[in-house]
Amino acid sequence: MSASSLLGDIADVGRDRSRGGYSRHGFDSAELSLREWFVAEAADRGLDVTCDRNGNLWAWWGPPGPDAIITGSHLDSVPGGGAFDGPLGVVSALAAVDAMRAKGIKPSKPFAIVVFAEEEGGRFGVACLGSRLMSGAIDPATALNLRDPDGISFAEAVSAAGLDPARMGRDDEALANIGCFIELHVEQGRGLIDLDAPVGVASSILAHGRWRFSFTGEGNHAGATPIGDRRDPMLPASQLVLAARAAASSVDGARATIGRIQPIPGGTNVIASTVDVWLDARAATDEVTRNVVAEIKAAGLSAAEAEGCELTVTEESYGDTVIFDPVLRDRLAAQLGGVPALPTGAGHDAGILAAHVPTAMLFVRNPTGISHAPAEHAEPDDCEAGVAALATVLEHHLST
Amino acid sequence: MSASSLLGDIADVGRDRSRGGYSRHGFDSAELSLREWFVAEAADRGLDVTCDRNGNLWAWWGPPGPDAIITGSHLDSVPGGGAFDGPLGVVSALAAVDAMRAKGIKPSKPFAIVVFAEEEGGRFGVACLGSRLMSGAIDPATALNLRDPDGISFAEAVSAAGLDPARMGRDDEALANIGCFIELHVEQGRGLIDLDAPVGVASSILAHGRWRFSFTGEGNHAGATPIGDRRDPMLPASQLVLAARAAASSVDGARATIGRIQPIPGGTNVIASTVDVWLDARAATDEVTRNVVAEIKAAGLSAAEAEGCELTVTEESYGDTVIFDPVLRDRLAAQLGGVPALPTGAGHDAGILAAHVPTAMLFVRNPTGISHAPAEHAEPDDCEAGVAALATVLEHHLST
Repeated sequence: MSASSLLGDIADVGRDRSRGGYSRHGFDSAELSLREWFVAEAADRGLDVTCDRNGNLWAWWGPPGPDAIITGSHLDSVPGGGAFDGPLGVVSALAAVDAMRAKGIKPSKPFAIVVFAEEEGGRFGVACLGSRLMSGAIDPATALNLRDPDGISFAEAVSAAGLDPARMGRDDEALANIGCFIELHVEQGRGLIDLDAPVGVASSILAHGRWRFSFTGEGNHAGATPIGDRRDPMLPASQLVLAARAAASSVDGARATIGRIQPIPGGTNVIASTVDVWLDARAATDEVTRNVVAEIKAAGLSAAEAEGCELTVTEESYGDTVIFDPVLRDRLAAQLGGVPALPTGAGHDAGILAAHVPTAMLFVRNPTGISHAPAEHAEPDDCEAGVAALATVLEHHLST
Repeated sequence: MSASSLLGDIADVGRDRSRGGYSRHGFDSAELSLREWFVAEAADRGLDVTCDRNGNLWAWWGPPGPDAIITGSHLDSVPGGGAFDGPLGVVSALAAVDAMRAKGIKPSKPFAIVVFAEEEGGRFGVACLGSRLMSGAIDPATALNLRDPDGISFAEAVSAAGLDPARMGRDDEALANIGCFIELHVEQGRGLIDLDAPVGVASSILAHGRWRFSFTGEGNHAGATPIGDRRDPMLPASQLVLAARAAASSVDGARATIGRIQPIPGGTNVIASTVDVWLDARAATDEVTRNVVAEIKAAGLSAAEAEGCELTVTEESYGDTVIFDPVLRDRLAAQLGGVPALPTGAGHDAGILAAHVPTAMLFVRNPTGISHAPAEHAEPDDCEAGVAALATVLEHHLST
């Protein structure tokens, strides 16, 4: 079956009527529907599906075991996200199995398709939550206490989905099974379109963290409070947005973004008492990222002080620069006839796993580079080129 | 019964567990509970309650009729608001009836307590919606199309509450019944505390409007999009917050506030495609208010252009300066032994009615001046001084 036709099967699941695009978040009704759909698709192909202790799904072709070749991605999205980020890697894996079957290939090694849970952090705030839990990159107690915007904890959400929160955490058995992990993903950027190539391999991921800046002032009446009497946290919060842009602009390749801001209480005729602002910052190295964030933080503190506000800064997640295994990267590129290798600013479960097992990524061309938005796209022919490339590299791995 | 004990009866209705304080919005479950409570309290006092075509409640002591003396306020709050803004005027009216009854007073004129619907605009965005509809200050078609944050229209909300949307709009019969309207309200500011007076009368309300600024850029990935390729609407939205402060600071007595901002889609790792920002602006005169808003709008347009974003500005509501009837104001102040007269920056249903009937307001001291926040307060003794003052002026009006 083609990747496009599989994507078509889930095109109506989790559409976001107000934002556009899709809102499919870890263990919400849309993502649970997609998980059910994946289990059925895997069963149709005779794959044995298991759910690990951290909520990640594994569809095994043949018995599980050590030195397994693993491919896959995730099914959740950012709020109002596109159709490809995540699902393309899952449907391409299913389509690659079909392609290998059609050629009569039988894997000589353990092989599975994985679906990682809550990759975007769109519901509980920490990206790659399923792969972080599995690899021990986040303490399970910390993860279980994360709350979604409705106040539901991750522990409550996974319990409702039939998982046991007490069993979550580092899963050495699952990690030990993985011989290598190859994740296919839509490109998030204009690398391949500019190189006129439908498929490429990943070289590295920027260092990346998320920080919550909480500015606290004094809530009061928007009409009755003279300007001179105000301690309005919207002022330093706004200065933080400008400071983030300035700090990232001054460093080549750095990115700093504020896409989420929450004034409390949030009334039109109310001076906010608190404003929470989330900073997403990335750069080529740990040191540069830390320096950019330190500069933004200093600007936030100074702006808070000028308005008589308090500022607390919480690091919600952090991951150092990822350099994908160069031997595996070059081998894949050669197997695909010398496709280009590209760095990316986007985080992935493959980036988490890269600290533990040989890991690689395949990118599929994105005609505008837009991602995390309804306009995210990949042409059907490029999706099929991605499936063919994935089948080729899997075939090499499974037959050696 | 005392005002404090009546407030105690409703102290558990509509508490906001996440923001603190109360969230009671027009025709939501909390406000509907308060309306039921008011109907029961009025019935206990032998008052006849009617609901007008626009959802405002009237509790008549004796038959309705022309030249009626009307007091009252509203029961809804801003999001995360205080216990006094609105309910204090309603409970003080009930307590004033008790006080007059205890003195054996029988009204020589028609008299009613009114509860206006959706005064804060906390749900549908337009303040004083019930009094605006009644007085024709808003077109009913416009009002009925307003939507709350969940997408429910005002028409749907009032239908669910048993009202007929088709009958909403200017109510000349209700207006013709009003001889004068006297609204008691907690002070929103530090006028009375600084004058050491428990009660005062209102002299004027600032001109006041609300505008929605919608900045549109290009949604994209927070990690994969180089800074130079961005059209991020959070940048001009933040500059608007700073411009609003600068514009209001340069004009004596002007206020400009942004307490509500909504990036869409609102993900931490997503460059927003659109950011909606609500501006609340007020000043002593219409001309000054318009000038302040024009300056803010110009700054917004310039910031949007610099980021390659579009800006649309929508006036959601506007009310000119209100000067309360000076004869009525001075008469009330004299009846109360020469209490002070104070201007206010806060809007009220009394400000809407002032264009149609003689209207006055009594203010009750607020020890910190804080309002529209959980810390909003009035001491019990001051609340009783307010009830006594309201009973005194009603008694004068009802016996002449």
